[in-house]
Amino acid sequence: MKKILAELLTIGDEILYGQIVDTNSQWMSVELDKMGIKVIRKTTVGDVESEIMTAFAEAEQRADVILITGGLGPTSDDLTKPVLANYFNCELKINEEALAEVTEFFKSRGRELTELNRQQAALPTACIKITNPVGTAPGMWFDKGDKIFMSMPGVPHEMKMMMTEHVLPRIRKKYQLPVIHHKLIRTIGIGESFLAEKIAEWEKALPSHIKLAYLPSLGEVKLRLTGFGTSLPELERDTNEQIESLKPLINPFIYGYGEDPIEVVIGKTLREKKLTLSIAESCTGGYLSHLITSVPGSSEYFLGTMIPYAYEIKMRQLGVKPETLEKYGAVSEPTIIEMANIVRAKFSTDIGVATSGIAGPGGATPDKPVGTVWIAYSDKHHTVTRKLQLSKDRMINIRLASVAVLNLIRQSLPEVK
Amino acid sequence: MKKILAELLTIGDEILYGQIVDTNSQWMSVELDKMGIKVIRKTTVGDVESEIMTAFAEAEQRADVILITGGLGPTSDDLTKPVLANYFNCELKINEEALAEVTEFFKSRGRELTELNRQQAALPTACIKITNPVGTAPGMWFDKGDKIFMSMPGVPHEMKMMMTEHVLPRIRKKYQLPVIHHKLIRTIGIGESFLAEKIAEWEKALPSHIKLAYLPSLGEVKLRLTGFGTSLPELERDTNEQIESLKPLINPFIYGYGEDPIEVVIGKTLREKKLTLSIAESCTGGYLSHLITSVPGSSEYFLGTMIPYAYEIKMRQLGVKPETLEKYGAVSEPTIIEMANIVRAKFSTDIGVATSGIAGPGGATPDKPVGTVWIAYSDKHHTVTRKLQLSKDRMINIRLASVAVLNLIRQSLPEVK
Repeated sequence: MKKILAELLTIGDEILYGQIVDTNSQWMSVELDKMGIKVIRKTTVGDVESEIMTAFAEAEQRADVILITGGLGPTSDDLTKPVLANYFNCELKINEEALAEVTEFFKSRGRELTELNRQQAALPTACIKITNPVGTAPGMWFDKGDKIFMSMPGVPHEMKMMMTEHVLPRIRKKYQLPVIHHKLIRTIGIGESFLAEKIAEWEKALPSHIKLAYLPSLGEVKLRLTGFGTSLPELERDTNEQIESLKPLINPFIYGYGEDPIEVVIGKTLREKKLTLSIAESCTGGYLSHLITSVPGSSEYFLGTMIPYAYEIKMRQLGVKPETLEKYGAVSEPTIIEMANIVRAKFSTDIGVATSGIAGPGGATPDKPVGTVWIAYSDKHHTVTRKLQLSKDRMINIRLASVAVLNLIRQSLPEVK
Repeated sequence: MKKILAELLTIGDEILYGQIVDTNSQWMSVELDKMGIKVIRKTTVGDVESEIMTAFAEAEQRADVILITGGLGPTSDDLTKPVLANYFNCELKINEEALAEVTEFFKSRGRELTELNRQQAALPTACIKITNPVGTAPGMWFDKGDKIFMSMPGVPHEMKMMMTEHVLPRIRKKYQLPVIHHKLIRTIGIGESFLAEKIAEWEKALPSHIKLAYLPSLGEVKLRLTGFGTSLPELERDTNEQIESLKPLINPFIYGYGEDPIEVVIGKTLREKKLTLSIAESCTGGYLSHLITSVPGSSEYFLGTMIPYAYEIKMRQLGVKPETLEKYGAVSEPTIIEMANIVRAKFSTDIGVATSGIAGPGGATPDKPVGTVWIAYSDKHHTVTRKLQLSKDRMINIRLASVAVLNLIRQSLPEVK
């Protein structure tokens, strides 16, 4: 089977000058990779006719699928449409269906259709119009022998919807693509190199049609297994078999197999078990609560937080005993235990968690360097603590300490009745 | 003066497959743009010799300055070095100075130098070695007539340090570049299109050697004035003159002229005025406190937060009157006023601020749609409230409401004694 090759072409001065970051091409890469299409090049050029023409011709030499974003706005510096018409040797003409769609788009928002907006319905006659359900610039699909050019708006949510609903299905129809099956294994609480060491033998023994990728981010590592073949049920069986033999090696670190990040996984468990959570966070300064409340519906299980940033607030508002603070300091096991227990009792929740540490750059002492963090979990049965030694970087410490608490909740939850 | 053109070349399969986002090229674009060098293309290719060779040759056709990142690791899939040696028709040889540096790098970290690490000091003989003070892969500078090729590691902080300390100064020396002066004007609390309307006349009257760019982000808009000329003092005078005539048009929205974001500006003001802050945040769920505490040293003025996410916590822990909540609801002016006043009193701070709203997607009522948010500011002299009608998107609402509170603090602070 011939491997289908793709090139991603981004058009716009604002990307060349660094005014915006191109996040579109990463998303597109991932989607194409999942389908078994190989991205061989990404190119960004400015709003200059000759540059765009050259980029089209070069891409056509190299790739089968050329996906273009940007340069479709209604103003005169947006050149993608006239250049496409030129490249495909045809004219720009009002597409009646596109005109009806853009008219409806403005009408439904109670806005007038200006002549500038009307021109958004002018398309190269050689293209197949692709509907843009969430914006005013239609997409344009061009067949050229075995190759295709597809032009889309640069606005991320418009591009994504167009890709998902129209472009990817069309590409699947046009080309004979390999059957591919992906399976994600989400791990937390173990660094990439330690993980790699634990699974080295298993990785070496993977059959040749199953590939492994490490996808690390701050505080977690995702493993992605990809099976290539001709039968989806066989691939599902094969990857599942591999996962079954992987599990015993790293089971304590696996927290999921899907798209849900740790804060969503924990939210689902809390909801299922009908448990409630409260937080006393000091060094994480609100970020832990932000992770928890970034999940829609979190008000079902998350009741509230106290951030006792100052010493007096730890005593007077939260209620940590002055003796404890004086004897052991704010960054200590006795203090963190009190913090988690008190917030749980005060807020009348099933679970209370707490953080206290030196996020940095200031605040270090000889025995408590920057990056020293205590975290605790408390429920009616037990209180669990962990001491973390993190980095020198404030933002990294805030993120890692928060993720460590989420992991501590995950580890401790199964025991709560 | 001839315009100097640059091309940015990123090498690595992990970017083509979407496993990581390339943030390097945006940073480099901004730095080059500031110097008056025009980036005309960005290209990403995979770890394939022929692809890299072609990309080198194409870039040399188009640009004067070719900046290459990635592909410098010690493993066999990293090809940039051998391909550079091939392209410049020379051999790879251990560079004694580079070897000394990489040996020292490992020694200072108490680690053994393996043969693989030793090979990081092997460089194409045609290059000038550029020191990497924070990593093991040296940079390589190649002069080719009027053009230069510069190869750097893909690790962002290594690339940035190498660029700032060595590459940009060298480029400045090699080429005759225009004298450029940038000035940033940071605004908050006004949308891009309203801002554009207010300053349309002023913008039209800008002299031709001063350009204006809009740099919008969620909750604020930065304006960047760039002056091009031959004398820096003249450009400084010219841009300052323009800013003086801009000020009366949008003064209430300007919060700064430098690199400090709003949370840093507010932190500085609070510190200077020796004022303390506490927060009662509901719908923003910790994000407002996170913004405040992301600033190093914020413990000097920020004492703590209560996040009364649940109705009962608003009453029992924070102390909002049950009558107020019952009569007006949690998302109301009377409630937000109590929240700000109570947290200020409880935490004994000079200033108290509060948020309460419907972040979405759930929780809306007919008269309080998703995106309805009340915010309040309280000090000993007065309490100020604002009602916001934000978006349908939970994360956008959390961000915009938090930024609106920061702006409310900024607007209210001058009156506190």
